[in-house]
Amino acid sequence: MSSLHQFLHHGNYSALQAHLVEMNPVDLARDLEQMERGEMLMVFRLMPKDLAAAVFTYLDSSLHRHIVETITAQEVRELIDEMFIDDAVDLLEELPSNMVRAIINNTSPETRSLINSFLKYPENSAGSLMTVEFVGLFETMTCQQALAIIRKSGVDKETIYTCYATDQSRHLTGAVSLRSILLNDNDCLISEIMHAPVICVHTSEDQETVARKFQEYDLLAMPVVDKENRIVGIITIDDIVDVIEAENTEDIEIMAALHPSEDEYLKTGVWRLSRNRIVWLMVMMISATFTGTIIGHFEEMLRGAVMLAVFIPMLMDTGGNCGAQASTLIIRGMAVGDIDLKDWSLVLWKEIRVGVIVGVALSLLNLIRIMLFTKAGYQIDLVVTLTLFITIIFAKTIGCCLPLFAKLCKFDPALMASPLITTIVDAFSLIVYFTAASCIL
Amino acid sequence: MSSLHQFLHHGNYSALQAHLVEMNPVDLARDLEQMERGEMLMVFRLMPKDLAAAVFTYLDSSLHRHIVETITAQEVRELIDEMFIDDAVDLLEELPSNMVRAIINNTSPETRSLINSFLKYPENSAGSLMTVEFVGLFETMTCQQALAIIRKSGVDKETIYTCYATDQSRHLTGAVSLRSILLNDNDCLISEIMHAPVICVHTSEDQETVARKFQEYDLLAMPVVDKENRIVGIITIDDIVDVIEAENTEDIEIMAALHPSEDEYLKTGVWRLSRNRIVWLMVMMISATFTGTIIGHFEEMLRGAVMLAVFIPMLMDTGGNCGAQASTLIIRGMAVGDIDLKDWSLVLWKEIRVGVIVGVALSLLNLIRIMLFTKAGYQIDLVVTLTLFITIIFAKTIGCCLPLFAKLCKFDPALMASPLITTIVDAFSLIVYFTAASCIL
Repeated sequence: MSSLHQFLHHGNYSALQAHLVEMNPVDLARDLEQMERGEMLMVFRLMPKDLAAAVFTYLDSSLHRHIVETITAQEVRELIDEMFIDDAVDLLEELPSNMVRAIINNTSPETRSLINSFLKYPENSAGSLMTVEFVGLFETMTCQQALAIIRKSGVDKETIYTCYATDQSRHLTGAVSLRSILLNDNDCLISEIMHAPVICVHTSEDQETVARKFQEYDLLAMPVVDKENRIVGIITIDDIVDVIEAENTEDIEIMAALHPSEDEYLKTGVWRLSRNRIVWLMVMMISATFTGTIIGHFEEMLRGAVMLAVFIPMLMDTGGNCGAQASTLIIRGMAVGDIDLKDWSLVLWKEIRVGVIVGVALSLLNLIRIMLFTKAGYQIDLVVTLTLFITIIFAKTIGCCLPLFAKLCKFDPALMASPLITTIVDAFSLIVYFTAASCIL
Repeated sequence: MSSLHQFLHHGNYSALQAHLVEMNPVDLARDLEQMERGEMLMVFRLMPKDLAAAVFTYLDSSLHRHIVETITAQEVRELIDEMFIDDAVDLLEELPSNMVRAIINNTSPETRSLINSFLKYPENSAGSLMTVEFVGLFETMTCQQALAIIRKSGVDKETIYTCYATDQSRHLTGAVSLRSILLNDNDCLISEIMHAPVICVHTSEDQETVARKFQEYDLLAMPVVDKENRIVGIITIDDIVDVIEAENTEDIEIMAALHPSEDEYLKTGVWRLSRNRIVWLMVMMISATFTGTIIGHFEEMLRGAVMLAVFIPMLMDTGGNCGAQASTLIIRGMAVGDIDLKDWSLVLWKEIRVGVIVGVALSLLNLIRIMLFTKAGYQIDLVVTLTLFITIIFAKTIGCCLPLFAKLCKFDPALMASPLITTIVDAFSLIVYFTAASCIL
């Protein structure tokens, strides 16, 4: 950063240009983000076109808009033409629609038609994730012919390490690694060394499914085919890493009863942050009032034994925590593919037994504690111990059932995480508590 | 699966062998896991050595042990020699130590010394994650010489798509992609086309840091160097994808107050599952009793106005949920690198404002609700509204501060997630509640 500044201040532009091409695009983008905007634009314009396109994709989205608005239409056109199609489409999706129209009308006809077809794919589908810059070979070629094509066309391709073989009508028939092409004889046919069948996805497949396949088969790239099994693009692992992180963030946010958001925390406004939180909070606040109603129902009993109120927080918290543990394990297990709907009976039986073990341990510990430190009388001790035990087993059971049930109904299981379960378990534990109290006291 | 069975039943072993080499190792491993163990072993032994080694790495760990115990020492030796070193080390780490000793003594001397040096790296370090099967080139070579080396040695290498250039003493000096070697002239020098400096990690670096670097720079492979900057291995992206998922699972489990575990849920025993949950549950149960003590302290007041107890669950739940939302966003923000310790003032100021907005909205909604449906009297309405408002702001504040504070003290911020915060917020809200009640009533 300071070195870029120095070059600028001394007006030493050719040395700056030489320095720029030596830098890593990621680092360069980070430095640019910290510069004053006029200087940033000056440096940006000094970069060769391919570097500028690479750096641009790593810049923050607020800077994207600033740059596109500031540079000339001709420069925008060159930038978009130089970018990989999937990056260009990502850029267009974050710009306002009038700008998008202006940009698309301004690009080269081929780029324009490509972008248009990309914009038609649903968000988060394999089609929206893919890039069209792949090496396609015919299965009838020899290794030597294939290498010649890769040498000639490889420069503009996102990855050349896996090539895809097709028949004459461009139906996907096999995959062949650059490694096999290199390591085999010159006149060996592609059809002899290619792998078939190829693991591939359809354009409309959800990105989460795509990510699972990548992980399952340890792939670096995967072809995307249309309904007629013709290859239309590839997805590369670097985009999949981002998908995995985004899906994880979404799950974690939903599990904490947040409306999921793709924006960075520090760059999200206070109103937006509040809106993302408030709906679920309201729902849960209202439902928690039912729990209050239960207490209201037993008001008379509580007046007679106010001591009962002392144990309410402990019962509610422990039940909530037990439920949260169970639901978290099940939600995560389903997300990473370890647990499937058909395992429901195994899961349920496991959680019931865990509930019994945990229930015995915790209620015994608690019994000892209240007998030693609280002078509530043995009747209340009994009520508390019994309630705690039953609540824990219930919490573990409901904690594993709800996510499975959500999956069955095709809802996101993450919705069934701790806040919702806490509310249900709270109500249950209070009903058990007061019922037990009215029987025993 | 059924096709494998058919071959076996007809005793058609040569056809089975031909069928096996056509299959994807991942699918093959899945099929083997579902077979009866004797048949599984028979099929396993029919595979060519390299396929057997690939399939073996995808098998479940219980089968690993079964196979290693059943096949001959000679077969184990061939299997280990054929596997990539990092996979072999992973296998050894899951076997009991007497078996490990027997296996290591039995492998070839080179493999043995490699495995031994690997076993010295701390778990989850870059050293334990790397593989030694990379292509190393000298910077003084020409592209043609480099290609000849890749062709000759490439077969046994985990990836040949990025090669690393060193000076004569094997100090890492640059990285060069197979793509550049292919696309440049035959007599172009590696030193002219290589990238420098190379983004690399030290053997002792934590795997989470390594994963961040991979994501930041969109890499497919990264070299690992020793203290003298000599290249000792590489880490490939497929292992990083697994690291990312494992780190996410760990975070999610810690956030739900679970002792993190790397085992699959369905394969973990009931006692183990219970042990992973019980310690935190006990800690939180004991701390929740302090909340109960607060109620006990105000027993007299509660006896006079039992109605107050009705609102306790709603206040506790809402406070806990607000705190959980804030802490989750901050913990996740820090995990993906969006939020840094130095941003603490920005975060705090944001959360206070969000707290005010959410607090106003929720307490107004609640006020309307209790005025309409609960006949508690305007004094209690006032106490509840005031407590709710203050609790929400407190929950948002403490929810963002605790994870930051944990990071400052070098603890895992995920420890400060909802269960712990719930306990703190519960106690706080009850103190505010009863204090307000004693002032106003």
